[in-house]
Amino acid sequence: MSYIEKTMKSEKVYEGKMLNLRIDTVELPDKKYSKREIVEHPGAVCIVPITDKNEIYLVNQYRKAIDKEILELPAGKIEIGEEPKDCAIRELKEETGLEADDYEYMLEFYTSPGFCNEKMYLFIARDLEEGEATPDTDEYIDVKKIPIEKLIHMIEIGEICDSKTIIGIQMVERLLKTKSE
Amino acid sequence: MSYIEKTMKSEKVYEGKMLNLRIDTVELPDKKYSKREIVEHPGAVCIVPITDKNEIYLVNQYRKAIDKEILELPAGKIEIGEEPKDCAIRELKEETGLEADDYEYMLEFYTSPGFCNEKMYLFIARDLEEGEATPDTDEYIDVKKIPIEKLIHMIEIGEICDSKTIIGIQMVERLLKTKSE
Repeated sequence: MSYIEKTMKSEKVYEGKMLNLRIDTVELPDKKYSKREIVEHPGAVCIVPITDKNEIYLVNQYRKAIDKEILELPAGKIEIGEEPKDCAIRELKEETGLEADDYEYMLEFYTSPGFCNEKMYLFIARDLEEGEATPDTDEYIDVKKIPIEKLIHMIEIGEICDSKTIIGIQMVERLLKTKSE
Repeated sequence: MSYIEKTMKSEKVYEGKMLNLRIDTVELPDKKYSKREIVEHPGAVCIVPITDKNEIYLVNQYRKAIDKEILELPAGKIEIGEEPKDCAIRELKEETGLEADDYEYMLEFYTSPGFCNEKMYLFIARDLEEGEATPDTDEYIDVKKIPIEKLIHMIEIGEICDSKTIIGIQMVERLLKTKSE
């Protein structure tokens, strides 16, 4: 089976600074119509900044959508025309002050393809140098450095509960294990 | 550091069948105002249905938001008043026809907490019995059964690119390794 849903009508409901919302009327294989609510997002990057002692830098940040602070890997929205790797370099520096000599692309994935086109590009950053963070004026961020074994445990007990952060930590753990085998 | 962003104004932009959109005007710690675009979602479940030969059932499904077919673990939106486990039982049956004797809660996480409150509850389903699928009238789904080692490889080469599916497979692989040690 392979099919696409043909767009019969597309209505822009909202155009904002971080996302847009549109409602598509689509034709299904049985020729009936259905509606799809779609959040348009420019895409984002997520960085796993890891030291030679296998400690990872994370950011603690309040998120209005869930009304609480949450521990996440450094990440950010891709600007218009920006390459994902350049975005990774910029966001890591802004949020944590870190600069890395080595950025390696690992993976890309959709965060919630049922209703949103957000694609997340995951990078690992090595050979780190600490510096001064310069977050956006509306960002209040706390940087933490945590050993990867502790982070794996924090995933298992639910203390890390952000999808990109879970994926980034698990991918890097696998990479380290493969290398040590 | 610990703070919340106080809501000064909240505007509903859209109320739909799967999601709502609202714009909150918030007060930052420096007393300045900023806007937050927030997608409200009722939450969802994701199920890892695994056989005693460590094969996992997945669904291939066209997603309008990304305009392509994507291989995902069975999943679905939580109905009003529904418990996550009941939703897991219902969605697994609807999408794949499978019924399981054993459902185990594994983890919960936010898919995209920067702008959306969607929480995903992850379950593992064992002791499976095949039956007839009964998808929603606007869902066209193809069921696949794939060994976990192959799925791990498919994550690494980018053939599996859905966040909940990556997390579900990685968590179950970890669980199997822990048990065999």
